[in-house]
Amino acid sequence: MSSNDSTTSAITRFIVDARWEDFPATVRHDAKRSLLNFLGAALGGCRDQAIDHAVAVLGGLSGPAQACIIGRPERGDVLTASFLNAASGNVLDFDDTHHPTVIHPTSPVAPPLLALSETAKVSGAALLTALVLGIEVACRLGNVVTPRHYVRGWHITSTCGVVGAAAASAKLLRLDHQGTVWALGLAANQACGLVESLGSMAKSVSVGNAARNGLLAALLAQRGFTAAPLTIEGPRGFARVMDDDPEITALTDALGLRWEVSRNALKPYPSGVVLHPVVDACLALREQQGIAAEAVERVRVRGNPLLRQRADRPAPRSGREAAVSAQHTVAVCFLYGAAGVRQYTDDCVNEPAVQAFGARVTVEDDPHVAVEAADVSVELKDGRRCTVHIAHALGSLARPMSDAALEAKVADLAAYRGRERSVKPLIDAVWHLDAADDAAVALRLADSAG
Amino acid sequence: MSSNDSTTSAITRFIVDARWEDFPATVRHDAKRSLLNFLGAALGGCRDQAIDHAVAVLGGLSGPAQACIIGRPERGDVLTASFLNAASGNVLDFDDTHHPTVIHPTSPVAPPLLALSETAKVSGAALLTALVLGIEVACRLGNVVTPRHYVRGWHITSTCGVVGAAAASAKLLRLDHQGTVWALGLAANQACGLVESLGSMAKSVSVGNAARNGLLAALLAQRGFTAAPLTIEGPRGFARVMDDDPEITALTDALGLRWEVSRNALKPYPSGVVLHPVVDACLALREQQGIAAEAVERVRVRGNPLLRQRADRPAPRSGREAAVSAQHTVAVCFLYGAAGVRQYTDDCVNEPAVQAFGARVTVEDDPHVAVEAADVSVELKDGRRCTVHIAHALGSLARPMSDAALEAKVADLAAYRGRERSVKPLIDAVWHLDAADDAAVALRLADSAG
Repeated sequence: MSSNDSTTSAITRFIVDARWEDFPATVRHDAKRSLLNFLGAALGGCRDQAIDHAVAVLGGLSGPAQACIIGRPERGDVLTASFLNAASGNVLDFDDTHHPTVIHPTSPVAPPLLALSETAKVSGAALLTALVLGIEVACRLGNVVTPRHYVRGWHITSTCGVVGAAAASAKLLRLDHQGTVWALGLAANQACGLVESLGSMAKSVSVGNAARNGLLAALLAQRGFTAAPLTIEGPRGFARVMDDDPEITALTDALGLRWEVSRNALKPYPSGVVLHPVVDACLALREQQGIAAEAVERVRVRGNPLLRQRADRPAPRSGREAAVSAQHTVAVCFLYGAAGVRQYTDDCVNEPAVQAFGARVTVEDDPHVAVEAADVSVELKDGRRCTVHIAHALGSLARPMSDAALEAKVADLAAYRGRERSVKPLIDAVWHLDAADDAAVALRLADSAG
Repeated sequence: MSSNDSTTSAITRFIVDARWEDFPATVRHDAKRSLLNFLGAALGGCRDQAIDHAVAVLGGLSGPAQACIIGRPERGDVLTASFLNAASGNVLDFDDTHHPTVIHPTSPVAPPLLALSETAKVSGAALLTALVLGIEVACRLGNVVTPRHYVRGWHITSTCGVVGAAAASAKLLRLDHQGTVWALGLAANQACGLVESLGSMAKSVSVGNAARNGLLAALLAQRGFTAAPLTIEGPRGFARVMDDDPEITALTDALGLRWEVSRNALKPYPSGVVLHPVVDACLALREQQGIAAEAVERVRVRGNPLLRQRADRPAPRSGREAAVSAQHTVAVCFLYGAAGVRQYTDDCVNEPAVQAFGARVTVEDDPHVAVEAADVSVELKDGRRCTVHIAHALGSLARPMSDAALEAKVADLAAYRGRERSVKPLIDAVWHLDAADDAAVALRLADSAG
């Protein structure tokens, strides 16, 4: 980056010049993992009530049936499909998490690419290249404003996701330097989404808009629709307006050396990440130490203060609230030996046995425990005590899900909404997507096969 | 408002209960003036390059041709039409201005109402009632966060406009209390738009989205799509996230007693409002004192510091920049005796005579001069000096445009883009809209008549 070059201009040059064959092998593989995880999350989320409502409204207002709505019979124009697929991918909170920022990058970034690939032939490598860059831009922008931005109340997946979606779309559309700068600016100008909305369906609107409006930004820029050159870093731009102390250089720091997609973790459980070491500990107590639910008198969870702040929620009223309830989570682990999507439905929340077990769970702070760690201590009715300590939860960067576990997660999510055919061909297609001449054909054939 | 009632709940009850026949006569008349001014601004703006580009992109992605695009042959689905008409209404910066907040409320608020009126029959009074309420909500939300929000860099027309658009749409759709609360929350969650974008086409995207997404919020809420109940005033909601010191009570302060639509001024000139007293002074010097452009040696403009900060712009490069250039504005007043849309084109900016005259104009601060006031002093080549002081610019709340001047403005804007037929029937239809059984038919017949 030359000293008289803007930060936006520098990252734009990186986007324009990037090539699949220059990416490290780990980056390429991590891109496929992120895409596969997204497809699973969308297959699991696509029948959520929020998506049904959105399809009911947007379906009747959609333009030409250009692109598929994942897991559903409807099709939509590229903007509508982007909105709905992003919302589906994120609605269960089971999509990927960029640990430094807590952004879920693939839900806003991938859908525009999938939609565009249905309107003009693009190779699998081109789609994956754009995905890597979109994740890179969304997460780097998150790095610029983390942690203040999210703490203030910005739903960072939405606010940074729209810019990532624009970067990815601009790459796949092969926009030049000027067009890409405009696309990023048009996207930054549309950044929105409030943490207050989490727990209601409203979250799905800002995540859906992030995908839709990022694509819109790129399509407008392609036409010559202009934006201010410093919409991200200017005095009244994204970074300074949406954060009190942005670190602009984080947008380009170690660009091409450090890859954000490789700091992007996949969740084994659909609950809040702070609860994941708790799940690991409870499942270990049940399975490895053979502790049955009926034998348990009391459970004490001990973790980072964030765990208590986010998840000490004794009586959740819905599946959504249960996903951030330690009480509910501990209960289902002991009662069902699982903490998957089936354990976070409204029906499950209302089960008397789950509620009764949850009433016996307490949460304690320990500032010395890392966020990805936890202790769970069980006091049994016969007076015995057992404690399990988890240092790194499954799905943390130190202990990532294996490819096999990811495949099982995708299959489970696809089956969750009653899909009968195997997702194995789709999984294989993603693992080999960079060899496909036509990304859309490869994914479509794989999805309808089996 | 009872003490255990939320602010959002209180303003929602006001929205749900409001009736046209209960509004004061001035409010009813001001609503018609705002609508008429918007239609004129949209007719003048609808052929701007930004709108052409947006139509080129969104036209091909639009759903059913439900609603008209003002001043153009295309039609679009209700969301697309709302986007494009809001952008057209605002693109020239010739729409209304709510003085306490500098919100341009009618561009985001009116388009969803016009679009909805084409899909289901609504009376003119129902449409105007919804317009009053949408303006009320947008501007009151602006009052909550003014002046800090705009100063920080939020494009307040967009950020508050989306909530006003949702309120108006919810009213026209006759949503109940719960539905209206959700609509407001879904809209607040979509609030965005950066001041950095002003001067580029990007501005039109956030204003267009404000209208589109406000309508989307109401349509989703109508289906049962939920939002957090305190998305506006909650701890991670709109007001606290987008402002450091919000005054939440301003949302409901003197509700039904003070009406924001009556603090909504109409601009006689398409330039920034800080320049309006300058225009008045220059036109008075030219017309009343007979000072010809050739006789002028030097012009000194003296005004509130805001005038210099915003508009001391000696060499604007485009029509958009010229609209906030005192130098350009003074030049066209003396050279052409006018400062209308024709004087703020790129072509006019590039005229050597305009540039040469502009080079003889300087701007000085005087903190004792109000924003709506200015002094303009001319030094003539023969050594004489003349000064005119304007205390209240035309279009300020103290000296509003007359209805006749508004009608002339609308006619001028309609003619600007080559429209041949008279707008007189349309103007008459707006003045009598509250008596129309079918708002859409009344406006459509009037628009195609003459």
